[in-house]
Amino acid sequence: MRFGLFGSAQAKRPEPGSELTDSSQGFHEWIENNIEAEALGFHGVFVVEHHFTGFGQVSASLNLLTWLGARTTTYRLGTAVLVLPWHNPVLLAEQAATLDLLSGGRLDFGIGKGYRYNEFAGFCVPMEEAESRFDEAMEVITKSFVSDTPFSHHGRHWQYDNIVVEPPSAQRPHPPFWMGAGSERSVRQVAERGYNLLLGQYDLAEDVLRHVAQFKADVEQRGRKFNPMEVGVARAVHIARDKADLDAALERRFQGHMRINKISERPGETRDRFVHNEAETRRICDETALFGTPDQIARKLDDLRAGGVEYVMINFGGSRENIRRFARDVMPGLTGSPRFADAAK
Amino acid sequence: MRFGLFGSAQAKRPEPGSELTDSSQGFHEWIENNIEAEALGFHGVFVVEHHFTGFGQVSASLNLLTWLGARTTTYRLGTAVLVLPWHNPVLLAEQAATLDLLSGGRLDFGIGKGYRYNEFAGFCVPMEEAESRFDEAMEVITKSFVSDTPFSHHGRHWQYDNIVVEPPSAQRPHPPFWMGAGSERSVRQVAERGYNLLLGQYDLAEDVLRHVAQFKADVEQRGRKFNPMEVGVARAVHIARDKADLDAALERRFQGHMRINKISERPGETRDRFVHNEAETRRICDETALFGTPDQIARKLDDLRAGGVEYVMINFGGSRENIRRFARDVMPGLTGSPRFADAAK
Repeated sequence: MRFGLFGSAQAKRPEPGSELTDSSQGFHEWIENNIEAEALGFHGVFVVEHHFTGFGQVSASLNLLTWLGARTTTYRLGTAVLVLPWHNPVLLAEQAATLDLLSGGRLDFGIGKGYRYNEFAGFCVPMEEAESRFDEAMEVITKSFVSDTPFSHHGRHWQYDNIVVEPPSAQRPHPPFWMGAGSERSVRQVAERGYNLLLGQYDLAEDVLRHVAQFKADVEQRGRKFNPMEVGVARAVHIARDKADLDAALERRFQGHMRINKISERPGETRDRFVHNEAETRRICDETALFGTPDQIARKLDDLRAGGVEYVMINFGGSRENIRRFARDVMPGLTGSPRFADAAK
Repeated sequence: MRFGLFGSAQAKRPEPGSELTDSSQGFHEWIENNIEAEALGFHGVFVVEHHFTGFGQVSASLNLLTWLGARTTTYRLGTAVLVLPWHNPVLLAEQAATLDLLSGGRLDFGIGKGYRYNEFAGFCVPMEEAESRFDEAMEVITKSFVSDTPFSHHGRHWQYDNIVVEPPSAQRPHPPFWMGAGSERSVRQVAERGYNLLLGQYDLAEDVLRHVAQFKADVEQRGRKFNPMEVGVARAVHIARDKADLDAALERRFQGHMRINKISERPGETRDRFVHNEAETRRICDETALFGTPDQIARKLDDLRAGGVEYVMINFGGSRENIRRFARDVMPGLTGSPRFADAAK
């Protein structure tokens, strides 16, 4: 198996009057965690993009990854995901290609349609346009990467005339595209597009295994060889010291999920995506968490591996201690390459 | 006096079929030149943003600067300029704030309206909207930086509802804004906005001195203390080995300027900006160039300093050798702080 990091950094606006807040601290800790993760044998990172949260999630993910790229050498730099409806697709392709070029081809270009109501509302983009904006943006982005001669595009949301987009990416014809999916239909669409598949940290293990099996079948049906590294499964990990520590971590996970649900919901509307039953939300949070002792965590990862999962991106909640303990106590039994021993020499 | 670097890097698309081209080479040389420039006592860099040139000028300047930021410690990271008409101002503020935060407040936020026809045509933005897009973008960007509580904006080109833009910048209330100007009217507008002033590398020395004097008067008339470091003058420098080397460098400068003029012009229209008389263009290119021996270059810089210029951003045409020779043979007599001697120890 291979492991990466997944999640966000946090840079909150200082409270007015509190001159002592260093808003950069969360970003710098995230950078240092990832630098250490590279040394410990983690394969790369996927970082979110979110806007207007009020608690400082990463908004300019390609910029944060660019800083990290300059501080690392082999580590993959991934977005999970760039939310296309608010980006000018040509500017985004230029930014992505710049990072890919500078980093020697380390960008994993994860994209999504967006799901948070507060972001669509903030950008004054109707949620109903998410799908058509996504499709059109990917058409323009793909052309931007692959076209060595000028092209034009006159679509519903974007217009360009006779452009050649620079710089070129290092990975040709373009960086790998990664896309999330959570249903049979959406998994099939990812396979049809020829993209790699991202599965979410709140997807139950049985659903993950079902989606991976389906993706493999869909990919092979289309005559493409299935590579298990083209499926990334996000998981939250916490190595618990004792029962109280475990309970506290599960409670933090539940509260964090509820907070995200709250800013994501459209006021007055019930959407399938958001589970309104608190008990049910708590059950999903608990069941999908890889929280416990190293042995308990390794067993759950082994179950995923047995079902064809080879690449797990881990949300450690920003804990350097958990990154280190996972690398020392969990990874060696699963990767077959005890990189920690080398890195610690 | 203080000196910085100014210009572009180049990352050309490989010619189809030529698998050996390393498009990243130009970017990496630019990065390494700037890292060395920091060590040699240069104050920072300003980098251009251009699109669809076909010869690989920098398009995603904030990303290139972010990579450089991670490799430097005190060096200022400037844009000259971000061309606002094609940027979503909130996304741009987020990207800029991310760089400013990560770099510990080293961003110089230079902005412009755009002037190249091929860029407006490529983005399908009418040139007539340049001014209104610029004004509206700066209104949104300024609000994005300074607002700690949610704001809305419903303008002609952009709409936002109830947003708080994150992360915060390190420099408060915002990174310094820099703006180019080339006439009495436009210099006054920069002073009125409270921005810093950028003067171009093709501005004749007499015009530079006139603009600096006027800017100083305008700033003081508005009750603000004039700081000469708030005016940056771009200049091209080439230390010539002999007459043939000098002539070749002047010819390259002229041809490069003509190439830019050509892609900038609106087809069939004559604009004041572009001098169509080749002899006149050549005269301006020659007169504004600081090309020659170290002594000749130092004398021209001394003339600028006598007229109130303290900060010169230099286009060395990407030559590492010229950067080194300038630091060794020209800077010490002008900066009063022979940093080269320290750096070379």
